[in-house]
Amino acid sequence: MLDRDRCLALDADDPLREFRDEFVLPEDVVYLVGNSLGALPRRTAERVRRAVEDEWGRELVGGWNAAGWYTQPLTLGDRLAPLIGAGPGQVVVGNSTSIAIYQAVAAALRLRPERRVIVSDVRNFPTDHYMVQGLAGLLGGYEVRDVAEGRFDDAAVVLLAEVDYRTGARHDVPSVTERVQAAGALMVWDLCHSVGAMEVDVSGADFAVGCTYKYLSGGPGAPAFLYVNPRHQAAAENVLSGWHGHAEPFTFEAGYRPAEGVRRFAVGTPHVLSLAALDAALDVWERVPMDLVRAKSMALTSLFVELVGDALELASPPEAAARGSQVSYYHPDGYPVMRALIERGVHGDFRAPDILRFGFAPLYIGYADVHDAAATLLEVLEKELWRDERHARRLAVT
Amino acid sequence: MLDRDRCLALDADDPLREFRDEFVLPEDVVYLVGNSLGALPRRTAERVRRAVEDEWGRELVGGWNAAGWYTQPLTLGDRLAPLIGAGPGQVVVGNSTSIAIYQAVAAALRLRPERRVIVSDVRNFPTDHYMVQGLAGLLGGYEVRDVAEGRFDDAAVVLLAEVDYRTGARHDVPSVTERVQAAGALMVWDLCHSVGAMEVDVSGADFAVGCTYKYLSGGPGAPAFLYVNPRHQAAAENVLSGWHGHAEPFTFEAGYRPAEGVRRFAVGTPHVLSLAALDAALDVWERVPMDLVRAKSMALTSLFVELVGDALELASPPEAAARGSQVSYYHPDGYPVMRALIERGVHGDFRAPDILRFGFAPLYIGYADVHDAAATLLEVLEKELWRDERHARRLAVT
Repeated sequence: MLDRDRCLALDADDPLREFRDEFVLPEDVVYLVGNSLGALPRRTAERVRRAVEDEWGRELVGGWNAAGWYTQPLTLGDRLAPLIGAGPGQVVVGNSTSIAIYQAVAAALRLRPERRVIVSDVRNFPTDHYMVQGLAGLLGGYEVRDVAEGRFDDAAVVLLAEVDYRTGARHDVPSVTERVQAAGALMVWDLCHSVGAMEVDVSGADFAVGCTYKYLSGGPGAPAFLYVNPRHQAAAENVLSGWHGHAEPFTFEAGYRPAEGVRRFAVGTPHVLSLAALDAALDVWERVPMDLVRAKSMALTSLFVELVGDALELASPPEAAARGSQVSYYHPDGYPVMRALIERGVHGDFRAPDILRFGFAPLYIGYADVHDAAATLLEVLEKELWRDERHARRLAVT
Repeated sequence: MLDRDRCLALDADDPLREFRDEFVLPEDVVYLVGNSLGALPRRTAERVRRAVEDEWGRELVGGWNAAGWYTQPLTLGDRLAPLIGAGPGQVVVGNSTSIAIYQAVAAALRLRPERRVIVSDVRNFPTDHYMVQGLAGLLGGYEVRDVAEGRFDDAAVVLLAEVDYRTGARHDVPSVTERVQAAGALMVWDLCHSVGAMEVDVSGADFAVGCTYKYLSGGPGAPAFLYVNPRHQAAAENVLSGWHGHAEPFTFEAGYRPAEGVRRFAVGTPHVLSLAALDAALDVWERVPMDLVRAKSMALTSLFVELVGDALELASPPEAAARGSQVSYYHPDGYPVMRALIERGVHGDFRAPDILRFGFAPLYIGYADVHDAAATLLEVLEKELWRDERHARRLAVT
């Protein structure tokens, strides 16, 4: 087993170590929640200041042209595209993941009008499933089927997350996509827990969505993204047909005419200040070699699993290749255990009913961090420090 | 007619003059586009900096609780409510106006399942009409009828803007609401061009939506708001049923259960940095006496109409009480006229095909500004300065 000195040596040799300085992190904290909210990139404060004071303050409404606000949903989409295996003109940024899921699933249903089944996954992050339920309820006549039933032959669309938010279990995107499409259904991938954590390739899928506030560090509530495969762009309909998806928004026509290409999936006026923070984060990401990110991620999660050993029951797949960049454990008192850990400077999170999650953002988490986190966790468990009254269960809003 | 000295005296006596210093405005510009994008409040930069550096940077994911991010859609909604005649627990903030329109109209249709007509207004800002078209197209079997036909007796819902974005013409909200509801339809008001410009009272309406980036100065692409009358809150459905509208988002249940109250109309993760800018703007608005705003607004628009006289054909109602806080004129060469004006420091905007718009935000526009803007406009028209080659028509993205 690795000792702390060996971990420090690995950190010194880490080809990604330069990126650690790109992020602001509090002293004396090991932040293992980058899979929920990514840390603040050092350059973001100045970029957002510029958006507020220089762009809005000086250009005023002229900022829509002069500062490029109007085109940012597409220019940021193009910059994000390589992170998911997509090309230019295939990704639009804006709104939330929930909204993007609604758009993607509704568009898929319109492309398969003869089918009346939506396959989702009850283990998906709940909003995915909730949005599907809302859409099916509005339309009537649709069955929402859990993926565990394994039948796609009458499905219009299948919505799955590449990496499970609870366990970190990872789907094999190409083979699942192929199987779904062979059954005549369209494939929508939710990339929230994979984008920025590994090499992602959705180029074979029909649609994909994801958020930018986890591994990508786009900021709290940063805009989501929506990928539309070029083969669908001419026919796919955006049922949330707002003016920014219109062919010519500034002719102010009474009738909706969709824009060519992925821009038709834009909806309302983009959230410029939130986009500015994402813009800064992408300045970092365009220099990041994703193969090295995945290699380091697998090394970090493997080290953590090895160090924690049998002290907890693993909820994640034991093989690194089958996981995202997180490790989860079951514990019936997961909430007070996590409170006790956080009190000692190791920040993970808790997901009801019984999951402890630890996310390892490879750009700013190192081997010594993993060592320290595991050592603290083992101490909390061994000494049962979580039985302290202060850690009594309450609603975990993270 | 008022001369400039008399205008300066009116500015000196203006009971709202203290608010001018709350805003950052460039030197040598008369900014009459606050009806499109409101000017930057002076306090906003620091509030946004705090959200980025102190809340996100230091609290990290803990900001959802520690910085109140999680509850901001409701707390900001409560702070905004008095500006539209609503009470606490009736307004939720987030997403865009386009999305809020979709939610309100869809909810209204679900409350009137026996009716199959949506009344909209082809003169509405186009996104209103586009979103209705998208919803009707998705559902099938609905007629989208223009309000000019005047028939509401078979309508499920009527969607109108209190103030017309092109002409500034103002509906009488109580009487229209009463007429619509007497016909058995539900009333949805779009307040984009009235909120912050006048006293608004939608307490009799069923739903209302609006943006916060115009008169309210919430920032470019600032979040929208959605008002739901308390009498509908138990039955109204949010078809965009995202996790933030769930009764208990952090139990991560597989099934959607709507929250009690207006929170069920929240959708995905809120755009925290954009909300921070709105938070700062509301610090200003909670001190603003709206009766004085409306009085000054009517005085400013009346003065502008008087000074411009017959030099242009008025597109707005001639009586101040029948207008919002903008004045519009027709001109077949409106685009080059506006370019020539902007070159001379008077910023209005142009709306295709032939409308010159001038918005008067009463918190930072004064009587001398109106005088100077009118004088410049008259000079541009009299000397035909807009015939200059530099002002040749191109796409106006404002």
